[in-house]
Amino acid sequence: MISKTIDEIRVGQSAQFSKTISESDVYLFAGITGDFNPAHVDEEYAGKTFFETRVAHGMLTASFISTIVGTMLPGPGSIYVSQEVNFLAPVRIGDTITTTAEVTELLTEKKHIRLKTYCTNQDGTVVIDGQAVVSPPRP
Amino acid sequence: MISKTIDEIRVGQSAQFSKTISESDVYLFAGITGDFNPAHVDEEYAGKTFFETRVAHGMLTASFISTIVGTMLPGPGSIYVSQEVNFLAPVRIGDTITTTAEVTELLTEKKHIRLKTYCTNQDGTVVIDGQAVVSPPRP
Amino acid sequence: MISKTIDEIRVGQSAQFSKTISESDVYLFAGITGDFNPAHVDEEYAGKTFFETRVAHGMLTASFISTIVGTMLPGPGSIYVSQEVNFLAPVRIGDTITTTAEVTELLTEKKHIRLKTYCTNQDGTVVIDGQAVVSPPRP
Amino acid sequence: MISKTIDEIRVGQSAQFSKTISESDVYLFAGITGDFNPAHVDEEYAGKTFFETRVAHGMLTASFISTIVGTMLPGPGSIYVSQEVNFLAPVRIGDTITTTAEVTELLTEKKHIRLKTYCTNQDGTVVIDGQAVVSPPRP
Repeated sequence: MISKTIDEIRVGQSAQFSKTISESDVYLFAGITGDFNPAHVDEEYAGKTFFETRVAHGMLTASFISTIVGTMLPGPGSIYVSQEVNFLAPVRIGDTITTTAEVTELLTEKKHIRLKTYCTNQDGTVVIDGQAVVSPPRP
Repeated sequence: MISKTIDEIRVGQSAQFSKTISESDVYLFAGITGDFNPAHVDEEYAGKTFFETRVAHGMLTASFISTIVGTMLPGPGSIYVSQEVNFLAPVRIGDTITTTAEVTELLTEKKHIRLKTYCTNQDGTVVIDGQAVVSPPRP
Repeated sequence: MISKTIDEIRVGQSAQFSKTISESDVYLFAGITGDFNPAHVDEEYAGKTFFETRVAHGMLTASFISTIVGTMLPGPGSIYVSQEVNFLAPVRIGDTITTTAEVTELLTEKKHIRLKTYCTNQDGTVVIDGQAVVSPPRP
Repeated sequence: MISKTIDEIRVGQSAQFSKTISESDVYLFAGITGDFNPAHVDEEYAGKTFFETRVAHGMLTASFISTIVGTMLPGPGSIYVSQEVNFLAPVRIGDTITTTAEVTELLTEKKHIRLKTYCTNQDGTVVIDGQAVVSPPRP
């Protein structure tokens, strides 16, 4: 993993990470967080909801943004300052999520950057959008 | 789990969830998300950082907010609309995190609620704060 | 588990282990190793490759050889000296892999044994072959 | 992840991956592979062995080589042809393993490359060495 320092970052740079969401991802995430909402782990219950089947935790999908921040852009040495996410559409088990982070602003006084962050599914539907503020590693 | 409908929710209601963060929590979270930032999984690297040891992923700790929203307040049937988090202090393996969500506003037109959300460690340090907007189950 | 000492081992002895590869096996293996190659965890990507779907990590399948060495032939107390593997065919999620280790040589001077090691799928296709050298427990 | 095609690979190029081995890594690896050799999962037994405590499965550590091949050098699109590993020293829970793969030969006729592959612990001890042959993605 190669980090980008604040001096190497430009508006418009972006990075992506893709993964198909498995049932085991959702179950382990429930096990780590304690979020056993039946919408995530009870197919009988979930089958009767508007989404018709179990869905992944929104914060599971949102966490792929952290993967990009921590391993790609800017990468190791970054400090994650804040994250805003809007949950726009459900993610079902078996969906393939592509997460994108794109630099939208250099906050030069604080030496932070702002990233536009969003997740799309295999059909191109935006399931999450939002923004992150990150302190990249110092040169 | 007992859900609260929009009509049963009042400003000031709150709920809490506590958990000690284990090494396996951090490792499984890395395994689900792909976030192998060495700050989380490489003790040799992490020992030389400002935090002096491996720290949990910020989004792991933030996900306890989802646990409260999805299982307690308002509970099953809720739709998670948005979440803002500010990462204020590191969470180390072995820290015990207490997460609190408190209703601060009823957004009556959209039938949403706003929650103040924050996580503290065993010393009372606020490690994460922020807010959530949630659509509780309809009566 | 019963170990065989060097004196109890003869050329031609063999042992087998079979398991159907689950999606969770592949996902946990990615999570332990950090190998998030999209061929293993991204069905959209994998569907466009020559293999047409996600495949298991070759080293996951190869690790069943370690299962035989460490628990059956020779079993607990063995020292695994070396392993050579050739990856001959893909293993897809849902494939049932039978792994075989067969003693081919007693390396009497070093008190080691050589094993022919291979993995076949449910159709009899050899997906991995190779050899191991092991130091069995002393009598 | 960015792949290198055969035309972009030169002798001497290398990549590294580091991770501290957790107890949960060893236990999940046992659970995936079925290798419940007590040297890995029984501290009472393991405490009386030459290694004095539970050790990681050799193939777990060796699998970090796959992580480099599949995600860094050459990266996605590669075909893993073969792997030879020599297990030289034990890896204990809590050890931090740095795995290195370095291109040593271009096998131009078959369009394969040969990599020297090795894993060292936090003290610089080489715990595994060996070599891999890989078919990088075609340009």
